[in-house]
Amino acid sequence: MWPLFTTVCLRSRAGCRSSVSAAGLTSLFSHSAPLSAPTCRALLYRKHGDPSRVLQLEDVDLPPVGAKDVLVKMLAAPINPSDINMIQGTYAILPDLPAVGGNEGVAQVVEVGCQVKSLKTGDWVIPKDAGLGTWRTEAVLAEDDVISLPSDLPLLSAATLGVNPCTAFRMLSDFEDLKPGDSVIQNAANSGVGQAVIQIAAARGINTINVIRDRPEFSQLSDRLKAMGATHVIKEEALRRPEMKELFKTCPKAKLALNGVGGKSATELLRHLQFGGSMVTYGGMAKQPVTVPVSALIFKDVKVRGFWVTQWKRDHSNDEKRFRAMLDELCRLIQQGQLTAPACSQVGLHDYSRALEAAMQPFTSAKQLLIM
Amino acid sequence: MWPLFTTVCLRSRAGCRSSVSAAGLTSLFSHSAPLSAPTCRALLYRKHGDPSRVLQLEDVDLPPVGAKDVLVKMLAAPINPSDINMIQGTYAILPDLPAVGGNEGVAQVVEVGCQVKSLKTGDWVIPKDAGLGTWRTEAVLAEDDVISLPSDLPLLSAATLGVNPCTAFRMLSDFEDLKPGDSVIQNAANSGVGQAVIQIAAARGINTINVIRDRPEFSQLSDRLKAMGATHVIKEEALRRPEMKELFKTCPKAKLALNGVGGKSATELLRHLQFGGSMVTYGGMAKQPVTVPVSALIFKDVKVRGFWVTQWKRDHSNDEKRFRAMLDELCRLIQQGQLTAPACSQVGLHDYSRALEAAMQPFTSAKQLLIM
Repeated sequence: MWPLFTTVCLRSRAGCRSSVSAAGLTSLFSHSAPLSAPTCRALLYRKHGDPSRVLQLEDVDLPPVGAKDVLVKMLAAPINPSDINMIQGTYAILPDLPAVGGNEGVAQVVEVGCQVKSLKTGDWVIPKDAGLGTWRTEAVLAEDDVISLPSDLPLLSAATLGVNPCTAFRMLSDFEDLKPGDSVIQNAANSGVGQAVIQIAAARGINTINVIRDRPEFSQLSDRLKAMGATHVIKEEALRRPEMKELFKTCPKAKLALNGVGGKSATELLRHLQFGGSMVTYGGMAKQPVTVPVSALIFKDVKVRGFWVTQWKRDHSNDEKRFRAMLDELCRLIQQGQLTAPACSQVGLHDYSRALEAAMQPFTSAKQLLIM
Repeated sequence: MWPLFTTVCLRSRAGCRSSVSAAGLTSLFSHSAPLSAPTCRALLYRKHGDPSRVLQLEDVDLPPVGAKDVLVKMLAAPINPSDINMIQGTYAILPDLPAVGGNEGVAQVVEVGCQVKSLKTGDWVIPKDAGLGTWRTEAVLAEDDVISLPSDLPLLSAATLGVNPCTAFRMLSDFEDLKPGDSVIQNAANSGVGQAVIQIAAARGINTINVIRDRPEFSQLSDRLKAMGATHVIKEEALRRPEMKELFKTCPKAKLALNGVGGKSATELLRHLQFGGSMVTYGGMAKQPVTVPVSALIFKDVKVRGFWVTQWKRDHSNDEKRFRAMLDELCRLIQQGQLTAPACSQVGLHDYSRALEAAMQPFTSAKQLLIM
């Protein structure tokens, strides 16, 4: 459970009560909204708590499309762990209530306000920031709240591009100057971030040493990650064993360690860092802190950092070029077949209870994707 | 006990067997060296182990003074914890054996080689790097191995300038851009580094929040640290208490935390860091690792780093200007009475056993200074 360092008020458009006169909009609705009341369907929560209890699929009025707004039809939106934590009220940022769940997803523009310049009907867009509430069929959003993507991307890739691949991209770019031939070591290598790290690193010629928990189907998973570009796939226990010496005959020690687990797993990653290397923590699946030997800090000069893509997006909200450059590179990798989305279970929005239940299983491997 | 990440061969001049023809040198000896054999007295160890068993005060031949060498008379040298660890064989760098103990101290130049340019007879010098072996009466050193100090410094300040004040100076300079009015929080505030941090920070207008363990004479020590310039002095237990809120009404949260302890104490410091602040570890008195909550890394963007002044000196061995600039500023503070050396017990070299015993008491507060 995350302590709350900051409580950021996120906008929630669910409370808007203004209705739209453009009767044509209703033709976009997949459900049967009455012509006289332009609404959408949205997974709404009015208080924090167990998502299966507090979330409800409701009709929500759509506000008018302002001069700088766009009306979008949501296409698909994943259920990420942070979405669950936000509903539970345990995440680092929380919305004003009532709020629509979901922070990521891809939508298609179906109407643009008269002053909108960067978007046109038919464009695919994703949110620039967390907090838009993506588990809904339609939304009226400010032009500035979204950024466009090529509409020829696979739906799954587009819907899951904004969080995990961006996290992987930034961690591989912003902490160490990685060159072809360098090594990165990571735990949680089979997670959404982990798979993106493997693929982006491989495209850059960077070795990845990928740590996963032991499991009956270890060798199949290892093969799958290697097919994505993983240089090495090892079990967590191997980190402490002499066989690591053999491994490091084939690639240099890691300049960068990426930690999505915490606890012992993180400490073990540190052993395999080069002098002066960095460990970046982006998750804490094990719900245990990161423990760093004093000697590693003083004599090995390891740098222990954290990364949160939401913070990065906020810090760079006035620097759209940098966000755009990242998306362009990620989309190019997707289009070239070098970056694929992790396995997803696609579930209709109306079937959200099943998707939530699956998403909340501990160590679930298939991401749940709501299809609107 | 430090694990050995690297074993660096340090020069040891103790093994040199060449003798000096300049009979005049012997007049410098405080002990009765025979005229025909120019030697000095040195605390030598031939194997690693308990310092009280392996160290011996011996006559050691002095090599001839080469063209680029200087002959120095050691004036005073402290016993630092790292000196003890080096003799025990548990430090991160170890000398070739036999070796002379001690890594810090001040010496006076008594003879210069014909090509020496930067030094003259009478100059006070300190080692540029660890490993020179300072627990001796005289030494022949390369000009490049030492750097001069003003000879009007108090002896104690000069003898203890190269490690603790330099550590404090760099940590206050290299990790966060501290401006007057900013805050630094530190544990081990009564240590040599801690006292230097208080004084250097005070001279720069930076607030210090100083954490010390509770003790019967807490209020006297607190008064003493405040007289040095400490803004706040608090007990370790207070870090977890609501009274910290009161304290932070008088100064901002810390941009920088300095950790010489490790364990719980380090984790507590992290709570009082600003968003994006740094914690720098330079010691591990508690012999426990640094434990960092995952949320502090991800959502508070704290940076966890280490600092080792020996590494800094090596990394900047080709950049004497930077070392010189630091020493100039520290010497200016000393001359202006803004930086004083911590309490020292002065002990004659012949009485080294007593000094070693005192230095090895856990949590000893007075530094032992060998006077040659």
